[in-house]
Amino acid sequence: MDDDAMTRFPVPDRAEIPDDILERIDEETEEAGFTPNVFDAFAYKPSHFRAFFAYHDAVTEDTTLERPEIEMLIVTVSGINDCLYCVVAHGALLRIFADAPKLADQLATNHRSADLSDQHRAMLDFAETLTESPGDIDDSDVKRLRDAGFSSEEIWDIGSVVSVFNLSNRMATLADMRPNDAFYEMGR
Amino acid sequence: MDDDAMTRFPVPDRAEIPDDILERIDEETEEAGFTPNVFDAFAYKPSHFRAFFAYHDAVTEDTTLERPEIEMLIVTVSGINDCLYCVVAHGALLRIFADAPKLADQLATNHRSADLSDQHRAMLDFAETLTESPGDIDDSDVKRLRDAGFSSEEIWDIGSVVSVFNLSNRMATLADMRPNDAFYEMGR
Amino acid sequence: MDDDAMTRFPVPDRAEIPDDILERIDEETEEAGFTPNVFDAFAYKPSHFRAFFAYHDAVTEDTTLERPEIEMLIVTVSGINDCLYCVVAHGALLRIFADAPKLADQLATNHRSADLSDQHRAMLDFAETLTESPGDIDDSDVKRLRDAGFSSEEIWDIGSVVSVFNLSNRMATLADMRPNDAFYEMGR
Amino acid sequence: MDDDAMTRFPVPDRAEIPDDILERIDEETEEAGFTPNVFDAFAYKPSHFRAFFAYHDAVTEDTTLERPEIEMLIVTVSGINDCLYCVVAHGALLRIFADAPKLADQLATNHRSADLSDQHRAMLDFAETLTESPGDIDDSDVKRLRDAGFSSEEIWDIGSVVSVFNLSNRMATLADMRPNDAFYEMGR
Amino acid sequence: MDDDAMTRFPVPDRAEIPDDILERIDEETEEAGFTPNVFDAFAYKPSHFRAFFAYHDAVTEDTTLERPEIEMLIVTVSGINDCLYCVVAHGALLRIFADAPKLADQLATNHRSADLSDQHRAMLDFAETLTESPGDIDDSDVKRLRDAGFSSEEIWDIGSVVSVFNLSNRMATLADMRPNDAFYEMGR
Amino acid sequence: MDDDAMTRFPVPDRAEIPDDILERIDEETEEAGFTPNVFDAFAYKPSHFRAFFAYHDAVTEDTTLERPEIEMLIVTVSGINDCLYCVVAHGALLRIFADAPKLADQLATNHRSADLSDQHRAMLDFAETLTESPGDIDDSDVKRLRDAGFSSEEIWDIGSVVSVFNLSNRMATLADMRPNDAFYEMGR
Repeated sequence: MDDDAMTRFPVPDRAEIPDDILERIDEETEEAGFTPNVFDAFAYKPSHFRAFFAYHDAVTEDTTLERPEIEMLIVTVSGINDCLYCVVAHGALLRIFADAPKLADQLATNHRSADLSDQHRAMLDFAETLTESPGDIDDSDVKRLRDAGFSSEEIWDIGSVVSVFNLSNRMATLADMRPNDAFYEMGR
Repeated sequence: MDDDAMTRFPVPDRAEIPDDILERIDEETEEAGFTPNVFDAFAYKPSHFRAFFAYHDAVTEDTTLERPEIEMLIVTVSGINDCLYCVVAHGALLRIFADAPKLADQLATNHRSADLSDQHRAMLDFAETLTESPGDIDDSDVKRLRDAGFSSEEIWDIGSVVSVFNLSNRMATLADMRPNDAFYEMGR
Repeated sequence: MDDDAMTRFPVPDRAEIPDDILERIDEETEEAGFTPNVFDAFAYKPSHFRAFFAYHDAVTEDTTLERPEIEMLIVTVSGINDCLYCVVAHGALLRIFADAPKLADQLATNHRSADLSDQHRAMLDFAETLTESPGDIDDSDVKRLRDAGFSSEEIWDIGSVVSVFNLSNRMATLADMRPNDAFYEMGR
Repeated sequence: MDDDAMTRFPVPDRAEIPDDILERIDEETEEAGFTPNVFDAFAYKPSHFRAFFAYHDAVTEDTTLERPEIEMLIVTVSGINDCLYCVVAHGALLRIFADAPKLADQLATNHRSADLSDQHRAMLDFAETLTESPGDIDDSDVKRLRDAGFSSEEIWDIGSVVSVFNLSNRMATLADMRPNDAFYEMGR
Repeated sequence: MDDDAMTRFPVPDRAEIPDDILERIDEETEEAGFTPNVFDAFAYKPSHFRAFFAYHDAVTEDTTLERPEIEMLIVTVSGINDCLYCVVAHGALLRIFADAPKLADQLATNHRSADLSDQHRAMLDFAETLTESPGDIDDSDVKRLRDAGFSSEEIWDIGSVVSVFNLSNRMATLADMRPNDAFYEMGR
Repeated sequence: MDDDAMTRFPVPDRAEIPDDILERIDEETEEAGFTPNVFDAFAYKPSHFRAFFAYHDAVTEDTTLERPEIEMLIVTVSGINDCLYCVVAHGALLRIFADAPKLADQLATNHRSADLSDQHRAMLDFAETLTESPGDIDDSDVKRLRDAGFSSEEIWDIGSVVSVFNLSNRMATLADMRPNDAFYEMGR
């Protein structure tokens, strides 16, 4: 396990980590070619590791959204919340899943300057409001998503990705999780 | 299932809901004497129901914090995020778990005006910063928690409750989940 | 006089308080069954006591608004300004005057989540703007109130309640006025 | 009465105005050499006129503060709230009472750039916080005023001026009260 | 050279200042009857003096805007950025160029309360957005300017004045440049 | 000239562009291997082109700061102002000048998460304040820079870079300048 995965909490040794978590870490490592630091970091507390990745898996796997849309939401939200780990790691995923090498830098900086369809612009405007001022959401915000062509379940799924990464951004910033060097480069 | 549990998504019929979810709903109903609307609402999407309550259970059950401290964090964060469901439902839980009938109204309005120990004041100041401006968190914020006597694991647990309810507040507001009438009154 | 009515200024003894102020305090005490702490607190400076309650009486008595509307405005403004005394004391009055046990908690948390007519929603949207960013008010805000059916005098009266409680919230927070225990419970 | 005293409510004719209010207006007119528009404007609702000027008189007459300090507070608060009438009218009064022709423009723009003693800087820093974010006030803000040499009653009086002009700024902006031409020039 | 032109950097002696800069200073002094302090201040770093006034000259001389419009933009932007030097010095220029003694105080306080045509209101609304939240600018903001009758080059010129004074306000505040006494009075 | 250099103003043909400007464009093109779009964009208005690059040259060439420090300031400021062109183009320059492939993404997202010396952290904290709330700057901010070891001229130069890019960010966003594709990749 990489001691430099985060700076504010100790990363546990493999010997201390339960088998189901090691198994997940090994799968991810095989898939990515390296262990994304978020796995080493969340291993600090196994029950939270399980819950965090269960929610992450739910919103990325049981969804009406395309995977590039999910990563667009994540990068936009993480840019608003100034979360380095999530911007860099999910920037890489967005470049790969959307086959769009410039989109991540655009969304992390300002979704208004990104090359987007009108529908995706509406989706990301909503993500911005739900992130910055959740208490301001009312029927008119939801109506704007419907007018842009999103179904009820798509709206739920958009809201879920935004919400999960409002969680994720806060944990990554609190722990000062460090993006793996590989993420800065992937998919460019 | 209560059609009025939320206004922006349809609540499913019992017949449509997987058994493991019905089982959890029934357990909660038995314990509370009524079904908290958040269960009816999340049943809209079973995989998200499982993930949401798994994370909720993780941060309330595998924790170094006392249960009243957890509810203090939740009510403070939910007040900042203007989330009606969470303020009212967890306000009830705080009154009961802390045996403190006034504390929930104080924290939902302004934790600076609440009757708090210095340690709890530091904990809630941190919760406010992590909620309002997660990108501003740096070593000095974490040091202030340590100076107030919190261990590393306690700081992780505080951050986890704050983060999970930054998720929860957004889903509850998006869905317009309605607090059950019973919550307004419990524990006063 | 209750020494705990506020924490940042001393509450005077009855012997030090002018007769006209004692008379008002006694009337209020008889009506409420206890002395609301705001009276003990403002007795600290008799000339300010007289002015404060004169303005309070003017906006609650010489008005085109219904009393529940006045209390809806007060609870909404006080929630925005995070004023514990005013949220709790006027929350109680709103529950009683509107015969609506849940409305105060809804408005103190987020008027967008409250059960409101369109006209009252417009009224409280205006109250929010006038409270949070008074310099942003222009003809379009006033027009929205007229379009919602409010007359000129009603708009003046709405603005007056909002303005008086922008005063009141600041004095109550500065003095750290403590809500009487009774207010937390009344009208539920 | 000047129909141009405000743009959003009608100014009443003298014939419609109660005698006690005409008397006050005439006194002010004699003293200033013209009728400040705030008097014509508040005559729209006599009971509010009486309450408003009663509170105004209380905080300017029964006070531990010097008159220039009161006007410094008013101009600073009114600048923060972007209130044209109050900045211009009380800017004139500040120039005259403080015999300081530049101070009003400095405070209306940025009290940090004004020529101030340390004590007055502390007073105006406090006025800024109480105006912009009243819910953030806690013991440390009050302690800073005490450390700057202010007594309890002076702190109450400072808070009262700030609070009354948080009322006044909102009414003047709502009504779009227009500063008399004379105020722009007085005391320069 | 005036040692009191700014408080946070030393003002150089004439002997230290290159001839081209002395020449410009002397021209300005002859024209105004005194040396505006911004010239003494920028002489601290001659290369920056040349660049600053070159840009200033470009946006005031090669422009589709009328000079009063330029000064309206400057005073509005400087008021938003709380820049004392720019509000006072350009307030004087606005009074003179627009032959409008009250306009500068109105715009420095709140352009919503100023006596403006609809077109100038649109121009200043845009200046406010570009100053306060440049990242929020999108096609809709530019369209609003076009709908108000501004050509492409006028929009460029408006944006340039706003941008140059977002530079200027920051340098003046950082250096604590002091407005010459004469500016407070000119054109009233 | 590249018609896609910006979307909100037309890019002129070479034939319309004055010789001195063509010369500068050709020099830049030779040096970079392509024409950075900011040159095509500012050619829209030659007098502004000259002034903009004169100021840019002044703050990058006549300076006490190291070039990597200048680019650190630019990327940080541009990230705060959400300016796509400046984040991407100067991100490339920072990677090259500082020989630090990850630093640009870190600063564009959150300078608190970047690998920085204490002195550079202080420099960028100051850049953040001067960008976000220029009116809040006072002696204490300048003192913090001095305490971190910066001389007067270094502080002037830091402030100048921040100020020039508060101009630049606004022009780039207004014109919707598009970063050349090459910038996204350079120096990684």
